[in-house]
Amino acid sequence: MQKKHTISVLVENHFGVLSRVSGMFSARGFNISSLCVGETEDTSISRMTVVVRGDDAALSQVIQQLNKLVDVIDVKDLTAESFVERELVMVQVGVESARRHEVIQLASIFRAKVVDVGAQSLVLEVTGAEGKVNAFIDMMRGFGIEKLVRSGEIAIPRSPK
Amino acid sequence: MQKKHTISVLVENHFGVLSRVSGMFSARGFNISSLCVGETEDTSISRMTVVVRGDDAALSQVIQQLNKLVDVIDVKDLTAESFVERELVMVQVGVESARRHEVIQLASIFRAKVVDVGAQSLVLEVTGAEGKVNAFIDMMRGFGIEKLVRSGEIAIPRSPK
Repeated sequence: MQKKHTISVLVENHFGVLSRVSGMFSARGFNISSLCVGETEDTSISRMTVVVRGDDAALSQVIQQLNKLVDVIDVKDLTAESFVERELVMVQVGVESARRHEVIQLASIFRAKVVDVGAQSLVLEVTGAEGKVNAFIDMMRGFGIEKLVRSGEIAIPRSPK
Repeated sequence: MQKKHTISVLVENHFGVLSRVSGMFSARGFNISSLCVGETEDTSISRMTVVVRGDDAALSQVIQQLNKLVDVIDVKDLTAESFVERELVMVQVGVESARRHEVIQLASIFRAKVVDVGAQSLVLEVTGAEGKVNAFIDMMRGFGIEKLVRSGEIAIPRSPK
């Protein structure tokens, strides 16, 4: 598998920016594994976190081109630094009330929270780095996953110690 | 403020889909408040959660057009149904070690977790619906927010009771 890169892009919150930025990756043949965009402290500025897998050289070309876009304020490949990565996942698991306890107990190992309970299903929420989230999903697979929503990764550089 | 809509779009995980979908919203003048895209249980299929504010009639036109795109499998405006919404946020707060305890205590009210500690700062993680997340950010503002990353909202329909 190609190297995973986590790119943080700070943009002016104008419309069309998102499709121009994501279009830049796809024009170069990069498939985006995940993308998140949300407002920052300053609501006129949004931060995008893009996870792609691919070649270092091709990626640095994309980053150079992104930097030239009018609405792009800053682009950083966090992969080179030390950073905290987190993802949010909600999973709806099909489970009869008799086995509910078992699912909740397993979920607690991952510090997952129950966010909704139905007659035949549970919705659980978990956050963590990619590995933990994948392990949680694998665990839930045994019970039957009915729905799965992943936020995609967000990342923040680690603070100087 | 215009009505908030949460749209869930299931797409084939091909490249370019993301920019085509987001471009469809901006072509109609919708500004995207947040967008998340991540893989589902089936890695060839991704789910996008898009939050926009705007006019119901214009939005149903966008949804109709999205449904016509080759790589779009399903589009749902969750706003009409009952759903669980969650967002993940990481905040880096500037704080000297003397006041660290105070921040952590306040954060615990929101069930925020400390994910990184530096000499002069803390990184906290919190999940919740928009209102809770905004209240948490407001609270942290008093200490000085150095960095803020939001995943944007993900949503899942509530289970039948």
